[in-house]
Amino acid sequence: MEHLMEKDMEKRKTAVVFDLDGTLVDSVYQHVLAWHEALLETGIELSIWRIHRRIGMSGGLFTRALLREMGRDLDPARLETAQRLHAAAYNRLASQVRPLPGALELLARLSAIGCPWTVPVITRDMVAHAKPDPDLFLAAINRLGVEATDVLVIGDSVWDMHAARRARMLGIGLLSGGYSTEELERAGAYRVYDDPAMLLQHLDELGIRAD
Amino acid sequence: MEHLMEKDMEKRKTAVVFDLDGTLVDSVYQHVLAWHEALLETGIELSIWRIHRRIGMSGGLFTRALLREMGRDLDPARLETAQRLHAAAYNRLASQVRPLPGALELLARLSAIGCPWTVPVITRDMVAHAKPDPDLFLAAINRLGVEATDVLVIGDSVWDMHAARRARMLGIGLLSGGYSTEELERAGAYRVYDDPAMLLQHLDELGIRAD
Repeated sequence: MEHLMEKDMEKRKTAVVFDLDGTLVDSVYQHVLAWHEALLETGIELSIWRIHRRIGMSGGLFTRALLREMGRDLDPARLETAQRLHAAAYNRLASQVRPLPGALELLARLSAIGCPWTVPVITRDMVAHAKPDPDLFLAAINRLGVEATDVLVIGDSVWDMHAARRARMLGIGLLSGGYSTEELERAGAYRVYDDPAMLLQHLDELGIRAD
Repeated sequence: MEHLMEKDMEKRKTAVVFDLDGTLVDSVYQHVLAWHEALLETGIELSIWRIHRRIGMSGGLFTRALLREMGRDLDPARLETAQRLHAAAYNRLASQVRPLPGALELLARLSAIGCPWTVPVITRDMVAHAKPDPDLFLAAINRLGVEATDVLVIGDSVWDMHAARRARMLGIGLLSGGYSTEELERAGAYRVYDDPAMLLQHLDELGIRAD
C-alpha cells in the first residue's frame, strides 16, 4: 500500500502553461495603444486604462466587454473593422516588441530539467472560448498529457488567473503586463513575480525541480 | 470666542491642484511607449511596465530611477539624447491623445462654484525638484494664495500621492493612469475614483461645495 502511494506520487509531475503577450513577450502596451487607435478610428472613444485592464481577455470577449461597459451594442461589421485596424496599428508598433527579461532562459531551463511546458495558441474557432473561460488552458495541456491539478499557469493578467482557477490549475502572476501585485493576488495568484527572470530564480518555490 | 472660531472656519476654502498627464489628459500610455522607444534607440532595454510605474516622476528623476534600477550610471549626453528621442516619438503618437472623460466638465464646474484650481507647469529650472518632491505643488498653490492643508491634489500616479503627502496636501487618486486602487491607497490616497467624470459626481465626498 505504502509502495503504491509512493509510485503514485512519483508519477505526478508539474507542467507549465505560459501566456504569451505580457508574460513571455513585452507586447501588452503596444496592443493597448493599437486597440485604442483602432477603436478611435471606428468611432469608439474609450479611456486607455480601461482597454489595458481588459486586454488579457482577447478576441471577441474583449471588445464585447468594453462595449458593454460603454452601454453600446455590438455591431459585428464594426467589430471586424476594429480588429483589422488593430492588426494594422499593432504591426506598426511591433518592431519595438522584445522578449521579456529571462523569458528564453526560463523556457530553456524547463526543457533542460524535463519540465513539460507549452504556450496556448488561439485558432479562429477557439476565440469564442477565450479567457476567462478555461478552455484554452485545458486544450493546451491535452497535448502534454498531464492532469490540470499538476499544472501551473504563468500569466500577467487577472484573466489568466481567473481562467487558471476555473481550469483547477495554479495561477502564477507576473507584473510585466502592468497589473499590480494586489490585483493578481485578488484574482487568485498563488505567487507573483516581476517577470520571467525573477520566476526563474524562484523555481524551487513552485516545486519545479529536475527529474 | 465662538464668533472668532466661526470667522476662522469661514475663511477656509478648499482648492484643487491637478496633475495633467493621466489625470486630465489620456496621455500616459503614449508617454510610456515613447520613452520605451527612446531608451531602446539609446541602447537601454527596459521592460515597459517598469517605465509605466516610474513615469509620474517626470524629468531627470525618472530616467535616473530607471537607470539605477538597471545598475547603470547616468551619462548626461545619453540622457539628453533619450529626452530628445522621447519628444519625437511622443509627437508621432500625440494625435491620438484625448482629454479624459469629464475633465473639461470638472474644471468648468469648479470655476462655476468658485473653487480655486490650477495645473502645475514644469519649467526647465524646476525639473530638479519634480515629483515626488513637493516643490511643484507648493509652487502651484503660491499662485492661488491658499494654505497647503486646504488643498486637494488630483493625480493618477503614486508619485503624485507621495508628493501630496510631503506637501501636507490631501491626495486624490484616479485610475486613469493605469495604477490600481490598492497602489494609490498604499501611497496615501484619501479617495480613489476612476476618472475626472467619476470625481465630478462625488465632489460632496471631498467637501467641495458652492460658495
